[in-house]
Amino acid sequence: MNPICLQGKPIECKAAIAWEAKAPLEVTTVVVDPPKAGEVRIKVVATALCHTDAYTLDGLDPEGLFPCILGHEAAGIVESVGEGVTSVAPGDHVIPCYQAYCGDCMFCKHPKSNLCTSVRAFTGRGVMKADDSVRFHTKDGKPIYHFMGTSTFSEYTVLHEVSVAKVSKDAPLETVCLLGCGVATGWGAVYNTCNVQPGTSVAVFGLGAVGLAVIEAAKRAGAAQIFGVDINPEKFAAAKQWGATECVNPKDYDKPIQQVMVEKSPSGWGIDYTFECIGNVEVMRAALECAHRGWGESCVIGVAASGKEIATRPFQLVTGRVWKGTAFGGYKSRMQVPGLVDLYMKGETKLDDYITHKLPFHAINEAFELLHSGKCLRTVLTFE
Amino acid sequence: MNPICLQGKPIECKAAIAWEAKAPLEVTTVVVDPPKAGEVRIKVVATALCHTDAYTLDGLDPEGLFPCILGHEAAGIVESVGEGVTSVAPGDHVIPCYQAYCGDCMFCKHPKSNLCTSVRAFTGRGVMKADDSVRFHTKDGKPIYHFMGTSTFSEYTVLHEVSVAKVSKDAPLETVCLLGCGVATGWGAVYNTCNVQPGTSVAVFGLGAVGLAVIEAAKRAGAAQIFGVDINPEKFAAAKQWGATECVNPKDYDKPIQQVMVEKSPSGWGIDYTFECIGNVEVMRAALECAHRGWGESCVIGVAASGKEIATRPFQLVTGRVWKGTAFGGYKSRMQVPGLVDLYMKGETKLDDYITHKLPFHAINEAFELLHSGKCLRTVLTFE
Repeated sequence: MNPICLQGKPIECKAAIAWEAKAPLEVTTVVVDPPKAGEVRIKVVATALCHTDAYTLDGLDPEGLFPCILGHEAAGIVESVGEGVTSVAPGDHVIPCYQAYCGDCMFCKHPKSNLCTSVRAFTGRGVMKADDSVRFHTKDGKPIYHFMGTSTFSEYTVLHEVSVAKVSKDAPLETVCLLGCGVATGWGAVYNTCNVQPGTSVAVFGLGAVGLAVIEAAKRAGAAQIFGVDINPEKFAAAKQWGATECVNPKDYDKPIQQVMVEKSPSGWGIDYTFECIGNVEVMRAALECAHRGWGESCVIGVAASGKEIATRPFQLVTGRVWKGTAFGGYKSRMQVPGLVDLYMKGETKLDDYITHKLPFHAINEAFELLHSGKCLRTVLTFE
Repeated sequence: MNPICLQGKPIECKAAIAWEAKAPLEVTTVVVDPPKAGEVRIKVVATALCHTDAYTLDGLDPEGLFPCILGHEAAGIVESVGEGVTSVAPGDHVIPCYQAYCGDCMFCKHPKSNLCTSVRAFTGRGVMKADDSVRFHTKDGKPIYHFMGTSTFSEYTVLHEVSVAKVSKDAPLETVCLLGCGVATGWGAVYNTCNVQPGTSVAVFGLGAVGLAVIEAAKRAGAAQIFGVDINPEKFAAAKQWGATECVNPKDYDKPIQQVMVEKSPSGWGIDYTFECIGNVEVMRAALECAHRGWGESCVIGVAASGKEIATRPFQLVTGRVWKGTAFGGYKSRMQVPGLVDLYMKGETKLDDYITHKLPFHAINEAFELLHSGKCLRTVLTFE
């Protein structure tokens, strides 16, 4: 089947539908409408799973809409484009970007932000901007919501043009798909959000794929000490392989982990940069409170459960600690993701090493189980 | 009486003793010992009152020690110096600095911090470093604690050499005394901690002397919009005179002030820089939450009551807001206060305008009442 022949027509293909929170996905056939103005339809070649997919599926996202097609960490090939689309053409290799980049809004134009607002109001409601509606249906016509503007748990999906990064055709899509979320987020938190300096100390709370990406980038940035912190010591081997100089299990201590880390810090006054890669507000607090007196920065990367709040004594800030956060590592997605792919192609990253499992797409529920087991970094699903 | 003759001898002079929390100060005669190694005895010419003095006197500082001699915003003349003191000599005009600067510790050497630790462990316990003891006694020998390493509510006081900034002899001490705390803190929060950029928007919560100093500096830094926020509209006239482009009373709205400020912001997405100059943790939260999505910075200046915590949803940070704080505006005290005095002497500041009341030292309890009344910016007390 030549996808070009389908241009302008609906496509029937395999997808995984999340009918409701806490239920397994149903792998079935869906109908994917052709792209409207400003839209791109792509054939998803590979998609990984990220905790945000699981978070929404678990019903923890108050804005989660069902039924929907989840998935946001992927890579594919443009099948067709809608009216007015000029930046990509059929056959282009692309990475979907849940954080769009239009280049026009005040956030895109500002050097310090990547939080493009061009399609945010629509992706947040699971619809496309052109007609405030969806491109996914069941075979009997029931509409299915989009998710994060990407919905990559489908062999074909429709995205806004501003949510598609064109990347090198030489890059293996089943690997660079990881640059659509977690790994890029960890790298960017180090390079962009905190701008980690050579010779400094870094602490990483949570040693999943994002935490390891922080370690990888911190090492590359020249950090002298990199502490990996996790309550699951099975994660320490990978952390050390990635570049952690010491791993710490909070369960091994009978005092708060922030105190442990301050005592372990080279100066005795805290860690220069700390990163929370879990989404636990108590750990966010600990990460802030073990940041270095005078200049330490703590960066929230993890997504906390709805309604949860972070807290600390203001004295922590008055004595020089800075509390910040990052979304997609501060990368201006469509502009910068292609460069991350090039970096991988030069052999300068550990991207391959984050892929611990490969499964066919129809085994997607098994992939979710792996994610929850804590035994996998990333599972990449490919369409047969 | 030529103070030089007293070198090496105790001096009997007027001081205001805080015998216990919540009681008026007793203006009486105290004995001030000569300076020991690394110490300087100064004749206080003028001292202002700051809310931190009131805070401690009100018993809110859990580390407050009684009896003590309060006061930390002052200016004076060196009467004598202890062994090894080389940076100042008798007759030098000085401003006491509660935040010391030794030039040697890791915090002094770091470009981003002014939190010198050289004498901190001693000043925090109300004593001097040389012998872990005090230089103040009642006439019958009862020891009296120091406060913040300054204790300027005394005609003579003893400070560590690292807590004394030598300033121009041309400067009027009864004015530049304000550079020992509040005004310098507000200026520095703008210039150092946040580095406010031209054309940006600023919101200042709390329009006392520190808040006005933030407004003054924000205007000088070229902020395009400066919002003054206070629940006491009597403070708006001064705020506008200082440079506020709009004043806002949270009581005039039935929605949270953070929402009001986001709606008032030029972009509709928040204020570029916000400053909390009160010490109220709920206002600190509001200040953070009305900071601009993507790049807004919120700076805590006010000192919160003991045990109080700040809180927000981590989403506020993940979407680009930065939460920070400042102590003494980030100025490296002994190094930079002389330059602030020079700036005043060039006529480039509104320093004179912060002084709304002048009283003789013996009326110090009246000055505390003025501070609490909300009707004064700064009262300067001088010794007859």
